[in-house]
Amino acid sequence: MKIKVIVDAFGGDNAPLEILKGCRYAIDELDCEIILSGNREIIKKISNENKISLNGMSIVHTTDIITMEDEASIILKEKRNSSMAKGLELLKDGAGSAFVSAGNSGALLMGATFINKRIASIKRPAFAPLIPKYNGYFLLIDSGANVDCRPEILEQFALMGSIYLKHMLNIAKPRVGLANIGIEEHKGGTLQQETYKLLKQNPTINFVGNIEAREIPMDAADVVVTDGFTGNMILKTYEGVAISLITKFKEIFSLNFKTKIAAALISKELKQFKNNLSSSEQGGAPILGVKQAVYKSHGNADAKAIKNAIASAIKYSQSKIIENMEIK
Amino acid sequence: MKIKVIVDAFGGDNAPLEILKGCRYAIDELDCEIILSGNREIIKKISNENKISLNGMSIVHTTDIITMEDEASIILKEKRNSSMAKGLELLKDGAGSAFVSAGNSGALLMGATFINKRIASIKRPAFAPLIPKYNGYFLLIDSGANVDCRPEILEQFALMGSIYLKHMLNIAKPRVGLANIGIEEHKGGTLQQETYKLLKQNPTINFVGNIEAREIPMDAADVVVTDGFTGNMILKTYEGVAISLITKFKEIFSLNFKTKIAAALISKELKQFKNNLSSSEQGGAPILGVKQAVYKSHGNADAKAIKNAIASAIKYSQSKIIENMEIK
Repeated sequence: MKIKVIVDAFGGDNAPLEILKGCRYAIDELDCEIILSGNREIIKKISNENKISLNGMSIVHTTDIITMEDEASIILKEKRNSSMAKGLELLKDGAGSAFVSAGNSGALLMGATFINKRIASIKRPAFAPLIPKYNGYFLLIDSGANVDCRPEILEQFALMGSIYLKHMLNIAKPRVGLANIGIEEHKGGTLQQETYKLLKQNPTINFVGNIEAREIPMDAADVVVTDGFTGNMILKTYEGVAISLITKFKEIFSLNFKTKIAAALISKELKQFKNNLSSSEQGGAPILGVKQAVYKSHGNADAKAIKNAIASAIKYSQSKIIENMEIK
Repeated sequence: MKIKVIVDAFGGDNAPLEILKGCRYAIDELDCEIILSGNREIIKKISNENKISLNGMSIVHTTDIITMEDEASIILKEKRNSSMAKGLELLKDGAGSAFVSAGNSGALLMGATFINKRIASIKRPAFAPLIPKYNGYFLLIDSGANVDCRPEILEQFALMGSIYLKHMLNIAKPRVGLANIGIEEHKGGTLQQETYKLLKQNPTINFVGNIEAREIPMDAADVVVTDGFTGNMILKTYEGVAISLITKFKEIFSLNFKTKIAAALISKELKQFKNNLSSSEQGGAPILGVKQAVYKSHGNADAKAIKNAIASAIKYSQSKIIENMEIK
């Protein structure tokens, strides 16, 4: 029997068209089935208009939608019948193995925590995207779920991140670094100083010490541990600088005849470079610490990002990641 | 009479050679005189060996050096006679108009605060580098001096940053943004929420609201206000991503015959691009909130960065920036 993935057809800026396209790619490439949660009439209309076959997809009808502007808690109250809440319920009831949504992050986090539940021993679920670095990827945990954190929470992030990377990227002993303003043990605030001690003492964590943000894009660590506020700043600065540099490069290449020839000569390599950098390669981030595989795709995800998010969610749900976190 | 700038000849990774070269460029290009603080014999030996004329430079002899590993407080105790401490003393005594050092940031901050003194109304001095963005520069304050901050302190950063930019870049009403994980007023932790209220209420601050880190490299604000921990993360991520992307680009251009031709065709534009991005263009950051012009250059500053730091320090000391901060 094929694996079934539940997808929020109405999450994100490009829903439902790009979501439907992404699901189509996923079914064609990944040997899976999709359960869409959302408005049946609109899904049928959009897929008809855009000639997207719904073969391999079933629809669980619901009309409400959580917007990007909604407060997170709405998912447990007024919008308990939204496409996102419905998707999480379907996952809870075992209709599928994983749930993917490109919708409101806060609502998804709250919904996953209260509908699908936290792993008993885990204090706080976290967003943990894989981010391209100079060679390969690193995992940033937490990237925005928890603004305020205590040292024990960061220690759990280190453990969850290590388990995730072990299974997703086959890294036997992922190197864990603590994001800080300097490498010495006494650097940073109380949170960093106390976390340093915990990570250093924990024999199941391969702690490589504090790492400065400047070293993150190099090969400083496999798992970068931080509170959600700082993690969000790192993630978004990362994206912003990459986008602005690539935009500048494009401008340079279109300046004049000579630079346009240069662009043509190097087009294949540039495309590869852009693909490696692109956030759509991983398609999003898991919410680690939840009992089931809930995967957040970017708000601006296109079809390719959705397909990749589904692929990552399948791999995540088929691994022993959650099981291993439960034991810890 | 020419303006005199005091320079720490033994601060930073490339001291004293690059410092001496940078001072030479400064004298030749900027119509200034330099007072070097540091070991006279070594300065003379290195300048002789490298054929750097010391014309226009005088030396105040001192043998001790603060290293990058030293604790900040050493500048007020055991190393009160170091090249850095001596330079700050010379500035205090009016021997020159500004002091530039590429040495230990923490020690420089502590020295400037206790030797040259805080502006009476300013609670905490801050590092405030100008950082290249998509078009021009933005000021990041604080970028690492104050790990823990209160809302009133961030409000003062906003004021100091606005005054600095007004005079340094001739921006009449600099747009001030608060670095945060979302644009809505309720986003972030208590520090951000309370700071938002203060900035919004202050009629002398042109507050444009919260800005996400992703927007910083675009044209979101002229002054980005944040605590020193977060600011350091933003600054260093910024540098790290830019360096890693440029390194990758270089690799692409040297891949094969075709890409090498492309590199040759576009070499002039790429050089210009790299120059615009380079942190040596501004040469470092002022320590705002101190009664005198103390300017921190990068630890790895080369001669060009030192020259640019001297130029920025001259402009800073000749402006009414400190005077205007004293009134607030």
